[in-house]
Amino acid sequence: FVATVLPAIAQETLPSWSDGAAKTRILDFVKATTTEGGEGFVAPQDRIAVFDNDGTLWPEQPYYVQLGFILDRVKTLAPQHPEWKTKEPFKSILAGDLKGIARGGEKGIVDLVMSTHAGMTSDQFAKIVTDWFATAKHPKTGKPFDEMGYLPMRELLDYLRDNGFKTYIVSGGGVEFMRPITEKAYGIPPEQVVGSTILTEYAIVGDVPVLRRLPKIDFVDDGPGKPSGINKFIGRKPIFVAGNSDGDAEMLRWVTAAKGPGFAMIVHHTDAEREYAYDRESAFGKLDRALNEAERRNWLVVDMKADWKTIYASEH
Amino acid sequence: FVATVLPAIAQETLPSWSDGAAKTRILDFVKATTTEGGEGFVAPQDRIAVFDNDGTLWPEQPYYVQLGFILDRVKTLAPQHPEWKTKEPFKSILAGDLKGIARGGEKGIVDLVMSTHAGMTSDQFAKIVTDWFATAKHPKTGKPFDEMGYLPMRELLDYLRDNGFKTYIVSGGGVEFMRPITEKAYGIPPEQVVGSTILTEYAIVGDVPVLRRLPKIDFVDDGPGKPSGINKFIGRKPIFVAGNSDGDAEMLRWVTAAKGPGFAMIVHHTDAEREYAYDRESAFGKLDRALNEAERRNWLVVDMKADWKTIYASEH
Ligand SMILES: [Ca+2]
Ligand SMILES: [Ca+2]
Repeated sequence: FVATVLPAIAQETLPSWSDGAAKTRILDFVKATTTEGGEGFVAPQDRIAVFDNDGTLWPEQPYYVQLGFILDRVKTLAPQHPEWKTKEPFKSILAGDLKGIARGGEKGIVDLVMSTHAGMTSDQFAKIVTDWFATAKHPKTGKPFDEMGYLPMRELLDYLRDNGFKTYIVSGGGVEFMRPITEKAYGIPPEQVVGSTILTEYAIVGDVPVLRRLPKIDFVDDGPGKPSGINKFIGRKPIFVAGNSDGDAEMLRWVTAAKGPGFAMIVHHTDAEREYAYDRESAFGKLDRALNEAERRNWLVVDMKADWKTIYASEH
Repeated sequence: FVATVLPAIAQETLPSWSDGAAKTRILDFVKATTTEGGEGFVAPQDRIAVFDNDGTLWPEQPYYVQLGFILDRVKTLAPQHPEWKTKEPFKSILAGDLKGIARGGEKGIVDLVMSTHAGMTSDQFAKIVTDWFATAKHPKTGKPFDEMGYLPMRELLDYLRDNGFKTYIVSGGGVEFMRPITEKAYGIPPEQVVGSTILTEYAIVGDVPVLRRLPKIDFVDDGPGKPSGINKFIGRKPIFVAGNSDGDAEMLRWVTAAKGPGFAMIVHHTDAEREYAYDRESAFGKLDRALNEAERRNWLVVDMKADWKTIYASEH
């Protein structure tokens, strides 16, 4: 009871964060925005915080979680698609040749998404995703994905929520791929997940209304799409934003250019031993342009190796 | 203090609703979904309630509020567009000939929306809308629009929220037209407004990042678009849905066809004296197919004249 009512007294704030400049900047910002009468005070309803997902809240190496889902899905569906044996990028996947997927280029990736994410109803897709998350494991750690969230980021989400912030995911990933897992992984409900979408069509099937997932991209929530996605889905400008790659650069700049308080942070993957180390050259989560911008615009760059005492909750 | 803590004891529930079958059905549904251990209990996070706006929460006669905005906007912008003097549907609007707008057909309406809703940034548009609502009045009552919400519906929204429901608007209207007014009019924050959208584009203007509103429809949140819009923006199936026209039929059917509790209601405009009386033949808010469906599927049809003691708060 005491821990619930008096979190600040009963528990250390952001315990998995090393004491240092990164943690201090976060604490200072939250203190300023929540101190009534202070210069930086922000009314609770305007305390919107948005988080990129892959590489910011959980790993995106050795490949995106959603790509792992696609690979498994292709294997599951292969018996119904004998033509995949000779057709790229399916052929490479079935042969276990991940590098071969790249040869299919962007069209290959779109083919993969459409073959695995469309053609069923929204309810059916939600079940497919939920069933997959129930057994899928991260290829390096062997842990289920609801345990792959970074503990320091989960603490940050909780800390912001304890201080009246409404927390959202704003990810390039498919919104209907993320929604079944975000509550369990991050405490973020489905309606606070913004992501890429495919078109759906209302239809009556045997007197039952359903939403059919069509093989057509509706919206790509990445790069310049992220500010548009926030504007469309949330309709308020956030005051706190976290990302980890060039795909977040526009969102970070848009938030911090607004009048009034705006805090931007980048998770920099610097820990090859405990997680992964990559930035300017990475195939997934390339961080180049945004790293230059961070310096110029004074965005907080979190050094995962130095700033995080713990990566995953299961390390305890 | 007592009124806040003990609303059920201190105040009558839904005071502007006449005692009768409509009110009883609503109270029974809320009681069933909030009674822990009961058969119809719904966990608080799944208590999603969605409301159409025009004709459900406020009037849509003698024409949609957003059309009133468009008419005023055309008059304001006319000096910059001398060509409108001879070009329909602008010519008719400038001549005060509302019937002439219809002659432009669907293309005319799209031209009107694009001429008045695109070409500026999202921030600029929000200011244009906010400024308009600050002075605009309903053509019949002469009241500002934040006083035009139906009091019985506002009581219903508050009652649902007091019982742990999260309330959303799901309207065919433009989402960025509604968001500046919904908090004041209905207690619904911008992020809980789902509506039609136009495309926006991230751009840097003089080193400032902005979202430009492009003259291109992105999504039409009407008819079969409403279930798609709910799925896209909210990502959960509501258990309570209110509408007033054929444009709500798919949404009502989709919600009530789902497994588990689902309550659908239609506001039937039956009060020519205090508001308007219209249904199967109306140009705005035609209620024909959905009225037939209501009978077949046991949706609650609210008889505005009989079921509402008061229409507007200002009548008190
Ligand atoms: Ca990322
Ligand atoms: Ca309506």
